Amino acid sequence: MTGKLSLIGCGPGAADLLTLRAVQRIAEADLILYDRLVDPEVLGHASPSAELCYVGKQCTDGGRQQADINTLLREALAEGRRVARLKSGDPMIFGRAAEEIAVAVSLDAEIEIVPGVTAALAAAAESAITVTERAELQSFVVTTGRSAEKDKEPDWAELVKPGVCVAFYMSVAQAWRIQTALMARGIPGHLPADWIENVGKPDCRWTRSRLDRLALDAREQGVKNPAILFIRYPLSAAEAEAALPVAERV
Amino acid sequence: MTGKLSLIGCGPGAADLLTLRAVQRIAEADLILYDRLVDPEVLGHASPSAELCYVGKQCTDGGRQQADINTLLREALAEGRRVARLKSGDPMIFGRAAEEIAVAVSLDAEIEIVPGVTAALAAAAESAITVTERAELQSFVVTTGRSAEKDKEPDWAELVKPGVCVAFYMSVAQAWRIQTALMARGIPGHLPADWIENVGKPDCRWTRSRLDRLALDAREQGVKNPAILFIRYPLSAAEAEAALPVAERV
Repeated sequence: MTGKLSLIGCGPGAADLLTLRAVQRIAEADLILYDRLVDPEVLGHASPSAELCYVGKQCTDGGRQQADINTLLREALAEGRRVARLKSGDPMIFGRAAEEIAVAVSLDAEIEIVPGVTAALAAAAESAITVTERAELQSFVVTTGRSAEKDKEPDWAELVKPGVCVAFYMSVAQAWRIQTALMARGIPGHLPADWIENVGKPDCRWTRSRLDRLALDAREQGVKNPAILFIRYPLSAAEAEAALPVAERV
Repeated sequence: MTGKLSLIGCGPGAADLLTLRAVQRIAEADLILYDRLVDPEVLGHASPSAELCYVGKQCTDGGRQQADINTLLREALAEGRRVARLKSGDPMIFGRAAEEIAVAVSLDAEIEIVPGVTAALAAAAESAITVTERAELQSFVVTTGRSAEKDKEPDWAELVKPGVCVAFYMSVAQAWRIQTALMARGIPGHLPADWIENVGKPDCRWTRSRLDRLALDAREQGVKNPAILFIRYPLSAAEAEAALPVAERV
């Protein structure tokens, strides 16, 4: 009588960016695990008999850590409960899904993953920033400023290439390091860089910048996480750069 | 009395992966433009008085081309209509959004973009393939096998790096070229490669392969578009490769 785990993408904040499937699974759950990025209105879809459990783990807000969440999950599934684990955005994008899936697999519990609207695409929609564009931007990358282990930080300059739009999650504190890492490899300082804070919330804010002003603008405008940073490198920008005399590049 | 354009992400096929906001905007529209990848059930949310217009442009199915869609859009907005342009997946991912936004901007029409569940994330959810993973996969890339101009095809080997999961859209015909382009640059042939066809549909199918069998498996299993191809390069795989004597690598 092992239970069922539904890992549910709840979108980036706005309650109406929930999918119909997510609404249904929330309504069916016995136990709902949520954190602080999930809109309170989302919990209104829960059954009156469901148990709601806050497991926020952002910064030092006193919430549980991942190991505690895994323990809670293990106990609930072993009791045969239907657990809805609410994730902001999409569960597979920086959602620590692999660890929670492993708990359910170890108990031979049923697993369902409900995909959601990831924050970068909601940010693109709010600002009308096109993350792919015919003949200009052929690839779209999501990456993070924070990494699990400090010595394995993503090599950002390997990601920002001509024809690519990169969305950085949770990168405000790394703005200066991202800027210098990219410019040190010859990526043009005039590339557009845009910060979108509080995606899907009423206080959503869009700060336009460029690569060579990224950290300065973030500081002057007081940009804070949760925020998405877009850096776009259109093919035409790379061609214009290549056409310049070497002394005038970047 | 210029109209309003809503570019609406409808998710990858399953009608219950529509967001609540998308349902509402479809219900409010006077004119609905849709193509063949949108689930017929989605159209059930339309008002009885709305005009439904098929503008499919996949392959050679007799649908309209983008220029005709733009003309239709221009006329409807100029008449002050509320137009819902339904896009499969998310409008900003390979949805030609920029061109349709430009039409609305040129008429000074109101524009709203409703983000949706993109096909790669739905494919990841169906197969429980984690596209980011703590200390293993720090970045996630979406790219395409097809490009607008043949001479500007994405440089796939520049995208598949240690710590990255790449989702290729519409790439079945390029399987052999992707495989050889990556292996020619020393990317290990044993990396996991997975095809997910018909994401979000009842006939969704998952074909597991590896980089050095990619094209063979696609042909033998009869993999067809619409399909997502995942190639994952975990950091631990790169470390294991680097630890091998040079003669045994790849």
